[in-house]
Amino acid sequence: MSAIITLTTDFGLTDAYVAAMKGIILGINPEAKLVDICHTIKPQNISQAAFVLSTAYKFFPQRTIHVVVVDPGVGTERRAIILRTSLADFVAPDNGVLSYVIQDFLQPYPLQTTPIEQPQPVVLPPELEAVAITKPEFWRSPVSTTFHGRDIFAPVAARLSLGSPSTDFGETINSLTVLPLTHSYWVQDNILVGRILHIDNFGNLITDIRSEDLPPTKQTITIEVGGQFISGLSRTYEEGKGLLALIGSSGYLEISLKGGDAGTFLNAEVGGEVKIRLGN
Amino acid sequence: MSAIITLTTDFGLTDAYVAAMKGIILGINPEAKLVDICHTIKPQNISQAAFVLSTAYKFFPQRTIHVVVVDPGVGTERRAIILRTSLADFVAPDNGVLSYVIQDFLQPYPLQTTPIEQPQPVVLPPELEAVAITKPEFWRSPVSTTFHGRDIFAPVAARLSLGSPSTDFGETINSLTVLPLTHSYWVQDNILVGRILHIDNFGNLITDIRSEDLPPTKQTITIEVGGQFISGLSRTYEEGKGLLALIGSSGYLEISLKGGDAGTFLNAEVGGEVKIRLGN
Amino acid sequence: MSAIITLTTDFGLTDAYVAAMKGIILGINPEAKLVDICHTIKPQNISQAAFVLSTAYKFFPQRTIHVVVVDPGVGTERRAIILRTSLADFVAPDNGVLSYVIQDFLQPYPLQTTPIEQPQPVVLPPELEAVAITKPEFWRSPVSTTFHGRDIFAPVAARLSLGSPSTDFGETINSLTVLPLTHSYWVQDNILVGRILHIDNFGNLITDIRSEDLPPTKQTITIEVGGQFISGLSRTYEEGKGLLALIGSSGYLEISLKGGDAGTFLNAEVGGEVKIRLGN
Repeated sequence: MSAIITLTTDFGLTDAYVAAMKGIILGINPEAKLVDICHTIKPQNISQAAFVLSTAYKFFPQRTIHVVVVDPGVGTERRAIILRTSLADFVAPDNGVLSYVIQDFLQPYPLQTTPIEQPQPVVLPPELEAVAITKPEFWRSPVSTTFHGRDIFAPVAARLSLGSPSTDFGETINSLTVLPLTHSYWVQDNILVGRILHIDNFGNLITDIRSEDLPPTKQTITIEVGGQFISGLSRTYEEGKGLLALIGSSGYLEISLKGGDAGTFLNAEVGGEVKIRLGN
Repeated sequence: MSAIITLTTDFGLTDAYVAAMKGIILGINPEAKLVDICHTIKPQNISQAAFVLSTAYKFFPQRTIHVVVVDPGVGTERRAIILRTSLADFVAPDNGVLSYVIQDFLQPYPLQTTPIEQPQPVVLPPELEAVAITKPEFWRSPVSTTFHGRDIFAPVAARLSLGSPSTDFGETINSLTVLPLTHSYWVQDNILVGRILHIDNFGNLITDIRSEDLPPTKQTITIEVGGQFISGLSRTYEEGKGLLALIGSSGYLEISLKGGDAGTFLNAEVGGEVKIRLGN
Repeated sequence: MSAIITLTTDFGLTDAYVAAMKGIILGINPEAKLVDICHTIKPQNISQAAFVLSTAYKFFPQRTIHVVVVDPGVGTERRAIILRTSLADFVAPDNGVLSYVIQDFLQPYPLQTTPIEQPQPVVLPPELEAVAITKPEFWRSPVSTTFHGRDIFAPVAARLSLGSPSTDFGETINSLTVLPLTHSYWVQDNILVGRILHIDNFGNLITDIRSEDLPPTKQTITIEVGGQFISGLSRTYEEGKGLLALIGSSGYLEISLKGGDAGTFLNAEVGGEVKIRLGN
């Protein structure tokens, strides 16, 4: 079956760990279509993996299987899980890497205003099915304690792509671990505070302020970031001069530097504060 | 239909932008074969993208669709276009990224001797068909103003790969924007001056001096680059000692350092001058 | 035929050399499934390529074709070869890049205790078939002297994937060039000395000490590396604090830093020494 299987890992580009997973998958389902989402997640950076996955998964066809292996707890008691949503299936460690995916379905989702990661269990809504991967019959044998990507996640995803029901792999569970994601908040009637979630390849600062968090009169806001002030929103990266703000392609407020790299210019970091003031 | 679609972008390797485009393409044409040409083009470096594409496109089967998204003007008035040649189809912004492809068909092509980029329109020869992508029915909706790769170029390329005629996407146009590419020139009867077009992963300096620009007596030339002199041409990277020059796999004169990195050794930059003297 | 063809090169990620090879392969076998193993092998680093390939090839389905192009001698007298094993086929220069593959079949294999690379010919066991690629009819024409990946290895691998017998490409040969790989050795009854073979993306130091080289009482060994001492073996990367040692997913002893990068912490280099002492 020509299912699509995507891979998101922190394995980097200089080792053959990703290729080993692909070999295992193609040995089980030769027709699987493999797509790399990202392999340069910083080592063991669960929240970065969660964010990057969230910017890609919605654009794949229904029933795509997304495998995420950012897994500092490999070989320990942390669970390996399958999550099935109306749009896609996910195979991953239960460590928070699916937080944004779960946020898209779970209301209310545990939110916080400061970027401290303390994963916590949440009960899933009925439309999300989750399974703990506990039945070893589809795993590679023997299973290493250090590379479940190759020995568990890859073969499970490949079997799933052949149509196996998720309950073939273990017991249904009703809660998963999520990261309390940051969310912008009003500190005064006219001041909204958000955080930098991600800095992309162009140096654009992608914040946790969504289009719908902003007042309808978006043109009269002032954005403060790294000691700099930006008036109003632009529509494209080419407008005006210097720093600009716009609603990016994933619906988040972004800070950009025309013809340059805003991240470097502002010496910005993930977790850094961005303030919106209403009025001029 | 199992068409090949290649992707060349400046999206880098740490974001999911490329994956989002692949998801969109596979949702429209599940049989498309996706091949990455390069995603580490320097941000917004149109001439680099144009060069890198030129070193790959001729080696793909006929009717391969090459999508290029190095697009600083995304969301502005710059046109999005389809170019069809006898060999391949291209989907890209009309900003010069197809300059080398067009140069392969357009005689005379606007050339210059110094590497300043000032794109200009050129009238296409009759064997090249171009279309301005203006009909939104095949685009994602709503279209973002910042990510036409995902919302316009990917779906258009996918539809094209299913056999849609290019005129389904907009009006035929007869000119495209090109960069005036540099070309080596004779400053005296016996001195040819060229430029470094590209420095590759091995530190080889690839110049705009083509094999056919050189005199038949290639063995008696002296090459001057970065204050160093090289006598004659080598046949392989293993000949002689230190710096050497040869005709590389794309037909251009290359400067190489045996067992080392000529770019670092010479502190070379794209645009730097290379001089050929006839005689010893 | 939907054969799998993998690619391992030192071509890096900023040029289109890999894409040119893929275009050539798909022109000959449109159904080939292309999988990248690694393209960031350090330029001309044959032993690194050999090691990285060895950590991936066993996980691919039988009859996968692995193409390796780390080829400092391209265009010289060095042979281009096809190697067929019971598991897979390999297309590569005959310069040692297949050393670990050959080691898996050849007993005894030339081993040494210090990491000096001096390739040498070895006679192959009867279960390994090798062919020198000498017949030009399947090559691109003209063949460049600098890019046999595109002009020889890619078309030969593509033809091989269509079912051509290897003898279509040249004469059977009975020896290949291998690197004398390092192997751990006992300097005293209770001291085993090994070497760092590879430092992975996480900074884990992968040594040439295999699980079976260690005494059964693994828990009472002390590991000395970079002036630091580690007592006993861990089972996962999460155990204990600071430096730890474990048997990694390829069966080699690895040194790791919990939550960090052991390579940077220890300022380690490939070839560096690791000592095991029996007893506490």
